[in-house]
Amino acid sequence: MTTLTPTATATPTATPLPTSPSTTPLAKLLWGEERLQRRCEILAAISRNPVFADTQSNPHALSRKDLWTLRLKQGVELLKLKFKLGWSNQHFVDATKIAGDVLSLGVNYRIFIRNLEAQMSAAQKAYWIPRAERFEIAGCYAQTELGHGSNVRGIETTATFEPSAEADEIVINSPTASSHKYWIGSLGVVATHALVIARLVVKGQDLGNHVFLVQVRNLDTHDLMPGVQIYEQGEKGMGTFASMDNGVMAFTNCRIPRANMLAGMVSLERDGTYRAATNKKHAYTSMVIIRGLMSEEIGTEVAKAVVIALRYTGFRRQFNASRDGQEKRVIEYASVQHRLFPALARAVAMMLLGREMRARIDNIVNESLEDLHLQTVGAKIWVSVHGVRDIEVARLSCGGHGNMAATGLGPLYAQLSPSRTYEGETYVLSQQIGNAVVKHWKNKTESSISALPYLGRLREHTKMSQRLQVAGVDAWSSPQVQEGFLELRAALLAKRHLDDVAGGRDTSYDVFELTMAHADLTYCRALQAQVKQSPTEDRPTLEALANVFALTAIVENLAAFAGTDLLSAEDLANLRLAHKDAISIFAGNVDRVVDALGFTEYELNSVFARSSQTPYEGLLEVAKQSELTDNRFVRPMLLEARSLWKQYRRAKI
Amino acid sequence: MTTLTPTATATPTATPLPTSPSTTPLAKLLWGEERLQRRCEILAAISRNPVFADTQSNPHALSRKDLWTLRLKQGVELLKLKFKLGWSNQHFVDATKIAGDVLSLGVNYRIFIRNLEAQMSAAQKAYWIPRAERFEIAGCYAQTELGHGSNVRGIETTATFEPSAEADEIVINSPTASSHKYWIGSLGVVATHALVIARLVVKGQDLGNHVFLVQVRNLDTHDLMPGVQIYEQGEKGMGTFASMDNGVMAFTNCRIPRANMLAGMVSLERDGTYRAATNKKHAYTSMVIIRGLMSEEIGTEVAKAVVIALRYTGFRRQFNASRDGQEKRVIEYASVQHRLFPALARAVAMMLLGREMRARIDNIVNESLEDLHLQTVGAKIWVSVHGVRDIEVARLSCGGHGNMAATGLGPLYAQLSPSRTYEGETYVLSQQIGNAVVKHWKNKTESSISALPYLGRLREHTKMSQRLQVAGVDAWSSPQVQEGFLELRAALLAKRHLDDVAGGRDTSYDVFELTMAHADLTYCRALQAQVKQSPTEDRPTLEALANVFALTAIVENLAAFAGTDLLSAEDLANLRLAHKDAISIFAGNVDRVVDALGFTEYELNSVFARSSQTPYEGLLEVAKQSELTDNRFVRPMLLEARSLWKQYRRAKI
Repeated sequence: MTTLTPTATATPTATPLPTSPSTTPLAKLLWGEERLQRRCEILAAISRNPVFADTQSNPHALSRKDLWTLRLKQGVELLKLKFKLGWSNQHFVDATKIAGDVLSLGVNYRIFIRNLEAQMSAAQKAYWIPRAERFEIAGCYAQTELGHGSNVRGIETTATFEPSAEADEIVINSPTASSHKYWIGSLGVVATHALVIARLVVKGQDLGNHVFLVQVRNLDTHDLMPGVQIYEQGEKGMGTFASMDNGVMAFTNCRIPRANMLAGMVSLERDGTYRAATNKKHAYTSMVIIRGLMSEEIGTEVAKAVVIALRYTGFRRQFNASRDGQEKRVIEYASVQHRLFPALARAVAMMLLGREMRARIDNIVNESLEDLHLQTVGAKIWVSVHGVRDIEVARLSCGGHGNMAATGLGPLYAQLSPSRTYEGETYVLSQQIGNAVVKHWKNKTESSISALPYLGRLREHTKMSQRLQVAGVDAWSSPQVQEGFLELRAALLAKRHLDDVAGGRDTSYDVFELTMAHADLTYCRALQAQVKQSPTEDRPTLEALANVFALTAIVENLAAFAGTDLLSAEDLANLRLAHKDAISIFAGNVDRVVDALGFTEYELNSVFARSSQTPYEGLLEVAKQSELTDNRFVRPMLLEARSLWKQYRRAKI
Repeated sequence: MTTLTPTATATPTATPLPTSPSTTPLAKLLWGEERLQRRCEILAAISRNPVFADTQSNPHALSRKDLWTLRLKQGVELLKLKFKLGWSNQHFVDATKIAGDVLSLGVNYRIFIRNLEAQMSAAQKAYWIPRAERFEIAGCYAQTELGHGSNVRGIETTATFEPSAEADEIVINSPTASSHKYWIGSLGVVATHALVIARLVVKGQDLGNHVFLVQVRNLDTHDLMPGVQIYEQGEKGMGTFASMDNGVMAFTNCRIPRANMLAGMVSLERDGTYRAATNKKHAYTSMVIIRGLMSEEIGTEVAKAVVIALRYTGFRRQFNASRDGQEKRVIEYASVQHRLFPALARAVAMMLLGREMRARIDNIVNESLEDLHLQTVGAKIWVSVHGVRDIEVARLSCGGHGNMAATGLGPLYAQLSPSRTYEGETYVLSQQIGNAVVKHWKNKTESSISALPYLGRLREHTKMSQRLQVAGVDAWSSPQVQEGFLELRAALLAKRHLDDVAGGRDTSYDVFELTMAHADLTYCRALQAQVKQSPTEDRPTLEALANVFALTAIVENLAAFAGTDLLSAEDLANLRLAHKDAISIFAGNVDRVVDALGFTEYELNSVFARSSQTPYEGLLEVAKQSELTDNRFVRPMLLEARSLWKQYRRAKI
């Protein structure tokens, strides 16, 4: 059939995707060798397994109950693979991510066991960890309450111990509606055991929060244990965490053995004698661990979203027909490049710093906890704010079609969206950076924290008043200049924060900007360090990526310099040109990064990323399979609606 | 039961909500009298109607097919009410919004009939409009194609007319995969007729896009007509528009009577003689109309989201226990006030300017189409970008609990999220503002467009180089100073844009910032004009609101002033103080605005907004009703999972 249009589209063909991950040196740098190895093994095991690859099931069409059940079935299959193939816990956790959102059973391995390891006594570990490892028991972590999230001190659940001759038991109670445990992942349906954070009360004395292992369901029948009431929490918005059974729990005189109080750092004897360890290092361990893992995990999801968007925007054409009559590829527009390329650079930065943090967490006993705590706090805020936004940008870059569920972009957004409020709400958590700035400024101890040396600038007036020296366009691409700018910005905002605190003002809103500046610097430095360690052949690619990262962080954050003389109009004009140049240079390197990320069709799970179909062919196939296409089930209702007017002829129609 | 915690929460009680809308002078100002009257009538008709008020059905638990069917049933009930109560089309459209997201049948009244009115000849109108009004036929608007969205000139569908003795028909064809009609609301299941945008080809000559009324389904059987293939498009991400049956459509020699070409502006005679009207004023009518309606519609949804968040943050307490042992209300923190109060101010601005635009649209034949086009373009971008962000902020302000579907906040976000890409993608559409700036700058005609006079500043060097004169903190609250700042900012960005265009650079990314500055000014002025017209007793409230609006637009957009001498450090320090003061003053006025908005419990449809329950009680009730709470349906699978290890004892576990 001939077309008459001036912008006729040549029949486009699908671009193939890798069938297994890339293992080039650049791939190893981006993923880390161990994680890349696990990923290869997991994909080999699941991508052709019918429980996962079954293309007949369209998860987006299912009710929440049916979707949850499907994901549970997939989780059980992963457990079989774990046992059959001897996977480590980390293998299993990675597999739950690669398989999509198989969330519930992951809690046992990602959170529960890590906390047993960190907070139990040796004897407790020896008894409980093997049972959890083999999933004979299924664990969860019950800290948050309906009325108490970030403010852990507000927790109301009580664990009362009264020494007596008859029973050696602790009694757990939920004194109020607001003390219901809430948001507890895997508790709603799956868990048999919960680590419960509760206020220990011994002989009437409140000793503050402690951790208790509470059996919540019978191991043989899965019935609730006496004194325990559990509800599954209900549906989250936008399909977020549909496959997680978050649970609500209340206790009424629930009795547990005294031996179930986690005794890695405290002890409670039969007669009520209580001893706390002097080393409270691990008090915050659980949150430090989870926040620390978020950078790598979110970075990977953002990378996926950007790769999906790059495929679609490389295929889609709109406007400005060139000589061959074809419209311009969407990816060629600045409006798309300036959004997707920085997002890709940030995703890589998240993965790289995330891996560093995971290594520190695995070695947590030898770490400076304050430094690690501040790094994970800053990173958690930065990565959740940028990560959610970048996934949204990936969807928006795909225009209207990005709204189809089958692109995977909406579901990725929904999945990451709550990361800004869990494990510490963004603004509440930002205050920890603000507090650290105040504390170390007052104590002149900024050099003890790896991310804080920018405070030193405030102690030298000249460094805060001299105009930035940026000699032309190219100078903006110098890592020293970039770091200097970001340090100066962080220092300006730290100064503002210190003044606000001195003035007694509520800083809870403004401190967020300081936190982001602080974390920009952390991520920029981590990225630069990786560039220096990269193989020679990949260095130009990583330098181009790091340049886009840093210049974007600068261009998008000039507000702190308004009202100062630190930058000239010429500096800014040069900066804009340098940024555009950086985007152009990185454009020639994007394919190398995408190839090294090497996502397979299975991993991307998007109608925009299929080897055998173009995005348009994929979208048409989705439509052909829609349950609503055969509309016979509502025809009587439609025919009735169109004849209604006959019944109401008198009405004004 | 006694509580032992230092931050014990007094038993909170629920705050009642109005049972019908407020009709105070301020309510009339915010809603407009006619709309408020319709709203009262609609709520009286539906809020106790069992088809809508049925609390047994939890829409979030349903599969997409079941949810769609429920919404269709509700749509048919609204149609009955329309006929029974003699509602106008606008009544019906308003009712589809108030009832939640009863979307499909609304297309006939919101889009189809408006286009018949704008583009048909008198004779065509007389025949078709009554049929559409009484829903004897169900219409939709089929412009977008799989491969062609914003670039309407790229449309590939053809409508071929070859004069012949035998047939007086036009033949519609879809020549390629990319020419499938796509995203056509109400087409997937419901529509019987479509307004199809296609290239008219007469005797081999391509005459460009025209509009054709095509019957797509048999009126008696609802079967597809010959030559027409339709699929329902499938699920959108995040549950967005789940209740809309967007459709995909291809034509293969689909024959329609020549008389079905819309003939309001063109004519095509039996012998192939073609005449186009010299007045092409209405060529863009459809998009102008829909974009113009978005400000009021989105503003209302943002207002709902903010009111829900205000209720929750006024109830929730965290941290900083005061003397009575209670924690501080979340709404008292700057981090929440600085996010929710500006969002409320913007929502009101959206509603007010939206009503002005709707009045202009209703009077479109007497309007300057270029001016109205630019106003609706700027407003559409601004309102979709801020509206989506503000709804997200409302959710985030509610912390983790805001993620529950029953709060209504996630669903509101999902529903509005695609507004940034439909009816013109944000960046693509922004270029129309950029193009207008270039055109009127070159022609020195900026004064002909109501929003462009800021370009005049660029013609006077002194106005662009003199330091802004802001005499102290209070001066920042002067509407003249605020408008001056926003004008200067728009002028700075216009200058940058003009330079970029002169330099041959791709402006498609940067022009967005100019567009937002342009629209900030438009909204700021519209709000100020309304303040001046407000009743004396409400003026302080509206002044406080407008002050928050303007100062937020200033504080959040200082970047354009970096590298200039236009602001001093003192100006900025004063600005920050003025902004904080404005927030504090508005804090005392927020309840008045919320009362005047007067949303009922039915309208808010949120577990955070119930007269008989606190948010916590509501969340617990949601959990009790979760389908997963009774987990007997998966117990065999869970028990199997926990005994799997026995089968794999050899494995490394």
